[in-house]
Amino acid sequence: MNLSGLKYLVVGSGLWGAAIAERIASVVKERVLVVEKRRRVGGMCQSFVHKETGIECHADGTHIFHTRFPEVWDYVRRFSDFIPYRHKVLTTCKGRVYNMPIGLATINAWYGLALKPHEALAFIEEEARRSDLTGEPRNLEEKAVSLIGRPLYEAFIKGYTQKQWNADPKSLPASIITRLPIRMNYNFDYFSDPWDMQGLPAKGYSTLIENMLARPNISLALETNFFDIRALVPPSCVVFYSGPVDRLFDNRFGTLEWRGLRFEWRVEDRDDWQGTSVMNYADVEVPYTRIHEYKHLRPEQPCTAGKTVLCVEYPEAGGEPYYPVNVERNDKIYALYREESEKIDNLHIGGRLGSYRYYDMDKTIHEALTLFDQVFRESSV
Amino acid sequence: MNLSGLKYLVVGSGLWGAAIAERIASVVKERVLVVEKRRRVGGMCQSFVHKETGIECHADGTHIFHTRFPEVWDYVRRFSDFIPYRHKVLTTCKGRVYNMPIGLATINAWYGLALKPHEALAFIEEEARRSDLTGEPRNLEEKAVSLIGRPLYEAFIKGYTQKQWNADPKSLPASIITRLPIRMNYNFDYFSDPWDMQGLPAKGYSTLIENMLARPNISLALETNFFDIRALVPPSCVVFYSGPVDRLFDNRFGTLEWRGLRFEWRVEDRDDWQGTSVMNYADVEVPYTRIHEYKHLRPEQPCTAGKTVLCVEYPEAGGEPYYPVNVERNDKIYALYREESEKIDNLHIGGRLGSYRYYDMDKTIHEALTLFDQVFRESSV
Repeated sequence: MNLSGLKYLVVGSGLWGAAIAERIASVVKERVLVVEKRRRVGGMCQSFVHKETGIECHADGTHIFHTRFPEVWDYVRRFSDFIPYRHKVLTTCKGRVYNMPIGLATINAWYGLALKPHEALAFIEEEARRSDLTGEPRNLEEKAVSLIGRPLYEAFIKGYTQKQWNADPKSLPASIITRLPIRMNYNFDYFSDPWDMQGLPAKGYSTLIENMLARPNISLALETNFFDIRALVPPSCVVFYSGPVDRLFDNRFGTLEWRGLRFEWRVEDRDDWQGTSVMNYADVEVPYTRIHEYKHLRPEQPCTAGKTVLCVEYPEAGGEPYYPVNVERNDKIYALYREESEKIDNLHIGGRLGSYRYYDMDKTIHEALTLFDQVFRESSV
Repeated sequence: MNLSGLKYLVVGSGLWGAAIAERIASVVKERVLVVEKRRRVGGMCQSFVHKETGIECHADGTHIFHTRFPEVWDYVRRFSDFIPYRHKVLTTCKGRVYNMPIGLATINAWYGLALKPHEALAFIEEEARRSDLTGEPRNLEEKAVSLIGRPLYEAFIKGYTQKQWNADPKSLPASIITRLPIRMNYNFDYFSDPWDMQGLPAKGYSTLIENMLARPNISLALETNFFDIRALVPPSCVVFYSGPVDRLFDNRFGTLEWRGLRFEWRVEDRDDWQGTSVMNYADVEVPYTRIHEYKHLRPEQPCTAGKTVLCVEYPEAGGEPYYPVNVERNDKIYALYREESEKIDNLHIGGRLGSYRYYDMDKTIHEALTLFDQVFRESSV
C-alpha cells in the first residue's frame, strides 16, 4: 500500500470515522483514506438482511437512531431516508412483564396499585427513605436504593446489573448510575428525544454508512489493520483514530477494560415469538440480559411467513469491546492516553473506542462533526 | 335570509359538511351556503384553548386523527399541518392499571403471567372454551365471553359496557361487538393505522375546519337552524344534510335513539394529574367511563405551570347525540328514513348524524369525498 502523499487517514469506519471522512471529502475536498480491519464498514453499527427469513437485523444488538441535535438529524438524513420508529423496552422479572425504564406503569404493576403521578412520587420517596441509607451512597446498590427504594432495585436493577457487569452491584461504583430516570407518567417511549427525531434508516445502518463513504475523494481499505500499515503513514498525515486507544500507545499505561457481549442467533417457526422488539430479563437466574426480535423494528417490511429471528444477548468478558468499564482505574488510565494523544498535533481520537465512552449513535456523530469543525477551523484549510 | 338562486346548501359544519362544502367551492367552483345551528363550526369536532391554563382541549372528548386512506390524509393536510401523535389508552380496573385494548400486556398483567404470544393465544382460547357457551351468542355478554373468556370480560368489558349503554350486557345484542381485537403482542398503540398517518392538527380541529371553510365561494351562517330557513330553500337547491335524519322527516317513522355524554371539567393544581391522556375506568362502581387530560396530547405546547385540565366523561341519556344505538329497532327505523331520503333527488344525507353510524373522523371525510365524487360525476357539472 502506497501511502506517500497521504494527507488524511481515518482509522475505523464506524459512524465517527465515516462522518469525519465524509466531511473531509465533501467540505475540505481532500482525498482521505479509511482503513477498516473488518470485512464491512460500520463498526458496531451494522445491519444485514437475514438470509433465511428476509428480516433486517442488527449485528450487534438493537440500534435505534434518536437525537436531540437538529444538526445531527439533518446530517444523517442526507444519506438515508428514515422510517419513523419509537422504541419501547419491556422486562421479564419473576414471571411477569413490566415496562422499562421504570415508570408509573412499572411501579403500579410491581406494587399492585393505581397511584397517580404525585402519589407515586411520594410513595417512591417513602420507599427510598425506608431503606435507611444515610450519607453519600458508597456503591451502585446504595445509590440505586437511595433513588428508588429497595424493592424496585432488587426487582429491576440488581440482577440485570450483576449480569451486565458480572459483579455484585455492591462492588460497583455509585458513579456508574448518575441517575435512574423514573418517569412518573405512562410514557412508554424508551427514548425522550423529540418524536420526529427518532427512527431507523430505511435501508439499514450499513447502507447509511456506505452512503456516507461513497464519495470520490474517499478510498476505503477493508480488512486492513491500521497497525500493519502504520509505519507507511507519512509523518505529516493527519490521523483520525477510532480504534482502542490503549493499543495505539502499546498499552504503556495499562489496558482499558471493556465488557463484551455474545449473541446467540436462532430462527423460530413463529410469526411472532415475543411480541416486542427487545425483551430484557431482569432475573439473575436467567443467563442472558436481552432477547432481540428484529422483525418488530420494521413491521412494514416483507419477510418469510411463520419465521422469526431471535438474537439472545449474553454479557461476557473479553471478545469485542462493547461497553467501557468507566470505573476509576480505567478512567484514570484513559486520561493518560488522552493526554498523550493530545501531545501529537496531527492525531485525533474519537468514537466509542477512542473516547472510552458509551456513546449513542447521535453523540458519536455529534462528536465527529464538532471535532471536524475544530480541526478545520483552526487549521489553514 | 335571501336564499333565492341558491344551488347548494350544506346543513351542519362538522367534518362531513365542511368537506362537502369545500369540494363544491373548490372543484365545482359554485357558491355554497353552510348553515350551522351552533355558534362555532366543527360539530362534535371542536378544539379550544382553555383560558386559565392555555391547554388545547377538545370540547367533546379526545379526538385523534388516524386513517388508512391516503387520499383522506392528503386531503386534511391541505388545511393544516399535523403533529405526529400516537394514542394509547389505559384503564383502571379493580385498583390496578392496564393497557387497552386488551393485548398481551393486559392478559399477562391480569393473570400475573409472562406468556409469549402463541401461549397467550392458546390460553385465551382455553379460557373461552371453559365458559361452556355453545351455539350462537345470544347477547353481548355471551359474544364477549366466547371471544375472550369470562375473567377478562368481567374485568374489562362488563362494567364499562354497562355504564356506556346503561344496560346489562346480557340485554344488549351480540351484534354491538362484531369483534374484540386482542393483540397478541406488546403494541400499545391504540390505533392500527400507519404510523405516519396519525396525528393532531397543529392548530387544533376548529382551525382545521375553519380553514376548510375559508373559501370565497362558501357562505357560513352560524347560529342558524336549518328548520327555521327550510321553507326558503329553493326546490332546485341541492341539500347536503348532516343533521338528525329523523328530524328531517318529522320523526314520521319514529325517533332514533342516541347515547349522550356529559363532560365535567375541572382544573387541578398539578403538572400532571393522571400521567396519560385518556384513562378509562372499567369498574361499574365508578360512575364515569373516562378521564381526559388534554395536556398530554400536546406536550410540546406551552401552558400554565402547575395546572392541568381534566374532563370527566359520564355517559347519559338524552343531551347531544354522541353514539348511535345500533340495535335492530333503530337500524330498521333508520333504513326507512334512508329510503325516504333517496327518493328525493337533490337531498344527500351523511355524517355521523345523517348516517346513524359511529364514524371516526377519517371515515366521515372519506364518506364526504366519495359522495361528492358520486354526485358530481353523475350530474352534468
